[in-house]
Amino acid sequence: MSKITPEGGALGPGAPVVAVDVGGTSIKVAAVSADGQIADALRVPTPARGDDAAERVLDVVADAVAQVATSETRAIGLTVPGIFDDERGFGHWSENLGWRDVDFAALTASRFDLPVALRHDVRAGALAERRLGSAREARNALVVIVGTGISAALFLDDKAHVAEGYAGEIGHAVVVPGGEKCLCGGRGCLEATASAAAIARRYRRRTGQEVSGAAHVLARAEQGDPDAVAVWESALDALALGLSHVVALIAPDVIVVGGGLSEAGDALMLPLDARLRTLVRVPPVPTLVRAHFGQDAGLVGAALAARDLVANHAAS
Amino acid sequence: MSKITPEGGALGPGAPVVAVDVGGTSIKVAAVSADGQIADALRVPTPARGDDAAERVLDVVADAVAQVATSETRAIGLTVPGIFDDERGFGHWSENLGWRDVDFAALTASRFDLPVALRHDVRAGALAERRLGSAREARNALVVIVGTGISAALFLDDKAHVAEGYAGEIGHAVVVPGGEKCLCGGRGCLEATASAAAIARRYRRRTGQEVSGAAHVLARAEQGDPDAVAVWESALDALALGLSHVVALIAPDVIVVGGGLSEAGDALMLPLDARLRTLVRVPPVPTLVRAHFGQDAGLVGAALAARDLVANHAAS
Repeated sequence: MSKITPEGGALGPGAPVVAVDVGGTSIKVAAVSADGQIADALRVPTPARGDDAAERVLDVVADAVAQVATSETRAIGLTVPGIFDDERGFGHWSENLGWRDVDFAALTASRFDLPVALRHDVRAGALAERRLGSAREARNALVVIVGTGISAALFLDDKAHVAEGYAGEIGHAVVVPGGEKCLCGGRGCLEATASAAAIARRYRRRTGQEVSGAAHVLARAEQGDPDAVAVWESALDALALGLSHVVALIAPDVIVVGGGLSEAGDALMLPLDARLRTLVRVPPVPTLVRAHFGQDAGLVGAALAARDLVANHAAS
Repeated sequence: MSKITPEGGALGPGAPVVAVDVGGTSIKVAAVSADGQIADALRVPTPARGDDAAERVLDVVADAVAQVATSETRAIGLTVPGIFDDERGFGHWSENLGWRDVDFAALTASRFDLPVALRHDVRAGALAERRLGSAREARNALVVIVGTGISAALFLDDKAHVAEGYAGEIGHAVVVPGGEKCLCGGRGCLEATASAAAIARRYRRRTGQEVSGAAHVLARAEQGDPDAVAVWESALDALALGLSHVVALIAPDVIVVGGGLSEAGDALMLPLDARLRTLVRVPPVPTLVRAHFGQDAGLVGAALAARDLVANHAAS
């Protein structure tokens, strides 16, 4: 949480809330005070996928919230992974957590006494970047998370574009027709070519050698391993191509890159920027910048969404 | 105008306005009555490009408007081609008409006594499709015009996405890295591969044979000419790939296809739809439909924009 420390508190003054970020392996739960300090997060393991996965996740969330909430807490902010419709509070599906067609709005309304703001995890993180992080001041922004998969969130004229939960799935845009098989059933998707997981997987398949992840492939590329160079550069080409389509369509001012791969820093961002400048001729080339919040983005976004809920309720 | 005839008048009741659609070769000007009938359009040639092109276009527009306006006319709706910012009324540039950095809002305010609603030509046509045509009922819609070039307009949650005039330039998204050279300076852009002009040009270059246009290439493809088949199918592949990126990012309910190439009808729409269904795995595949208004879309959209201006002025 050390990165979010403008003077006077991380988020500034507002309603005391509890923020919850549901990840594939752990659930983070943190109290946010009236002056905007985010307490150290409680971490609990995410329940295994299977029957009633959503209900079991909410059981765990409820226990953890009970531990950190106080009598002052006004609302809960909760992120949901997968294909999630923030506007209806409806989970279409989550591949990681194994649910389909879950009405989270109804489930949380019946389970919690406090109002619950529900947000797609990537859009929650993007909200944090838009409000307090690397996309501040941007009127139109894309936040793309490159980790195990690739997913994005879109803020246009300062409003998240949701499309019933389906917006931002650029990981499944095809960048290499007929290319690598993707989990979605397609071929040559951006995610199958350029996610951190894909970079490691493609290197292993190509060489038969084990690597610990994309950072390891990058390290080998920097030492001149030609297979690592080929995999890394084709991933950069694919990322730039996918982003260039975003630029042509919506002309964002800023593209924020987060997720595990963004930890490569300049080794990722500089060649990605150069490629984007070659591909994009018509709209101005957007500023390409690393995410500010890293692993905490979802939690910060959940806190902001919970506070928005309280503020909107008070205003109406 | 025969297609726009719901009962009681084409556009329905509203303010009497004059609609102006500025095209590359001619300017169409038509009076719209209070009951929504659009009169036959007056057509005047578009002035040649060169110094003061924008002023000379407005001279011609002013003369023509004076001929069709009545004492009842409340506003003028005017389309502007090129890269045009509808919100500021600012023309960044027009390749066809040869201007750069023209403040149309200021020029029209000083020249016309009536209020002037300014709209990018493609967004004007898309407004007509969104309000009265093939994208009615759609919450999120893309309208793509495939003619000499390829350009699109985006309605998200019923609002045009403008991005200072740069939104919708999917004609310059790269679909064939390192492919055909494009007017924009890039290579392998969608427009350089799959516009009606590109289809004819690519066939001529490949065979050395003259064709009158894309329809001619399609006719030859239908007769089994293998070069025509190769060019036509690669154009379909490129269009589907470009549209699949749009779907992954914004998940529109409907994609409306207009412009000269859409006159191919099912020969275009059916294989394009099939390709899109193969490429798109994650969001629902949007409905693919031909534009309703054809060549009149810009004029109808200009009329709607002018009426909106009157209505908003009355409401404020």
